[in-house]
Amino acid sequence: MTANTNRRMVLKDYPTGAPGPEHFEIVEAPAQEPGPGEVLVRAIYLTVDPYMRGRLRPGPSYAEPQQIGAVMGGEVAGEIVASNADGFAVGDFVAAHTGWQTHGVADARDIRKLNPAEAPISTSLGVLGMPGLTAYFGTLDVLTPKAGDTLLVNAASGAVGSVVGQIAKIGGCRVVGIVGSDEKCDFITGELGFDAAINHRTTADMSSAMRETCPDGIDCYFDNVGGPISDAAFDNMAMWARVAICGQIAQYNDTEQAMGPRNLRNFLIKRATLYGLLVFDWRDRYHEGRARLTQWVQEGRIKYREDVVEGLENAPSAFAGLMEGKNFGKQLVRIDADTSR
Amino acid sequence: MTANTNRRMVLKDYPTGAPGPEHFEIVEAPAQEPGPGEVLVRAIYLTVDPYMRGRLRPGPSYAEPQQIGAVMGGEVAGEIVASNADGFAVGDFVAAHTGWQTHGVADARDIRKLNPAEAPISTSLGVLGMPGLTAYFGTLDVLTPKAGDTLLVNAASGAVGSVVGQIAKIGGCRVVGIVGSDEKCDFITGELGFDAAINHRTTADMSSAMRETCPDGIDCYFDNVGGPISDAAFDNMAMWARVAICGQIAQYNDTEQAMGPRNLRNFLIKRATLYGLLVFDWRDRYHEGRARLTQWVQEGRIKYREDVVEGLENAPSAFAGLMEGKNFGKQLVRIDADTSR
Repeated sequence: MTANTNRRMVLKDYPTGAPGPEHFEIVEAPAQEPGPGEVLVRAIYLTVDPYMRGRLRPGPSYAEPQQIGAVMGGEVAGEIVASNADGFAVGDFVAAHTGWQTHGVADARDIRKLNPAEAPISTSLGVLGMPGLTAYFGTLDVLTPKAGDTLLVNAASGAVGSVVGQIAKIGGCRVVGIVGSDEKCDFITGELGFDAAINHRTTADMSSAMRETCPDGIDCYFDNVGGPISDAAFDNMAMWARVAICGQIAQYNDTEQAMGPRNLRNFLIKRATLYGLLVFDWRDRYHEGRARLTQWVQEGRIKYREDVVEGLENAPSAFAGLMEGKNFGKQLVRIDADTSR
Repeated sequence: MTANTNRRMVLKDYPTGAPGPEHFEIVEAPAQEPGPGEVLVRAIYLTVDPYMRGRLRPGPSYAEPQQIGAVMGGEVAGEIVASNADGFAVGDFVAAHTGWQTHGVADARDIRKLNPAEAPISTSLGVLGMPGLTAYFGTLDVLTPKAGDTLLVNAASGAVGSVVGQIAKIGGCRVVGIVGSDEKCDFITGELGFDAAINHRTTADMSSAMRETCPDGIDCYFDNVGGPISDAAFDNMAMWARVAICGQIAQYNDTEQAMGPRNLRNFLIKRATLYGLLVFDWRDRYHEGRARLTQWVQEGRIKYREDVVEGLENAPSAFAGLMEGKNFGKQLVRIDADTSR
């Protein structure tokens, strides 16, 4: 079997406020051996995602809290280096929830084979992974945009938002994205084909920026952020607007309860609907979503951008940066050489 | 024809904050004569409803703003005293949107005949009128409670809330009502059959009161009020909860933007859905709703309570009291003798 050394990034403490490298530490140990039905995965890429912030607190959420002293949870794209499971061979590339470590054991029932000829394995964590599926079902099943609708999405150059906007463009919508830099504005309008972009860091009056870019009102609002951006969006909804609450990253690092205007009357006036969105609820249809997204990526109708940081030791800072919008595209951490390319 | 004197309650000024008698005045004039296809209605009861507060400001809402100097808009139950319309005779009882005046002309296409043998004509403004229909469609079409669900409703002894709760009881739900006095608590649990009641004026910790009375969480929340009561409700939703925003009376008299916790993340965690509800959207199905409600009232399965103030001159104070929850049951104003009984 293997004699790999496993480097594990474990949680030292729950952060109060912004998470940072000080809340994590690397622990070395020999890699586990896979038991019956299990495989050992060498991580190549790991993903950092905003939802992970919700796990870094003891209270209940939709995901189990991350345990102190345990390897930080999460998905990786990697290569099988030892297999004790039928149908999985050494050298197979897979996506697995082995967490922030160089080598992790996974039950073969919980992993998914990747075909590097179809798409780079890194996409299994982004445009063809959980973020892409969130965009797919959140847009098509929850927001149900019609051709001609105006869709607004924030964190629009990110892993989810960029796919939301492009799916809506395929469906004939006017798409407006909110991002945090002028470069990101250029990217979503130039590269991704959005109709307009708003840089929330340089826009004093978000509501008037929305009125300008969404002159007929917002029919669909895909919200990854929350906070004052949502206040402005709720003030600019069209009749029968649909809102998908996918994330509220503006509040994730808060140490005190954030306050905002009581504005739900907008939903009454506009007969709008707000949905809490969690992609797990579509797990029985991931196959459908992934097939469609793969096709669109192969046809060049959905483009994606990845922001790859090198080294497990930099995963915490990559995660911290993600919470502040420092990434440009899907944030990944390369743990080891990508031998699939 | 007629030589009635018409007393009209007109709006003098848009109120800032709470509305009161000082914002209205009575103007006398001869009653209009009905033109072709019109009738003249002697008002017997007029209704005051929370939605009217939204019309007392110049800005846009779902209803047109009330014009200064014009008769205050609203529905009445009354008697035809002059008719120039086929199918409508003097002595017919009707519901008509003639506003806060003793005598008003209405287009016969916009009025509805009432049958006093079926139900008291006052009910056309409450349990069998717009409030009852709001409860009917808001509960059955929007919240879609299943037997065994827990439904929470506020303003629960009022015209809408009392019907919401009783419909949910007919449908096999556990029903908890929030009201503003111990007498109202006794009324909704004793008379109306609610399972539990919370007096929000004497309950310091609404969230814990909800946890106690809704031990499996809130599946359906019918919200007439908004504000801190909704904050607590959102913290106590069950998975897949549905929320209907029917009114936000807690904010209607605000002179500054009310602030509250940013709590939409609850909708993500619980995959809850929030709907803005306005009964007008079901106008094509009013007949269905009214027939079912009439049957339930006749069978004694839906009970109603009316709070009747005497005299047009007291309509403004009745309306002001309604905004503070001083009414106990559907607030009506009797303008003239009810000769239908």
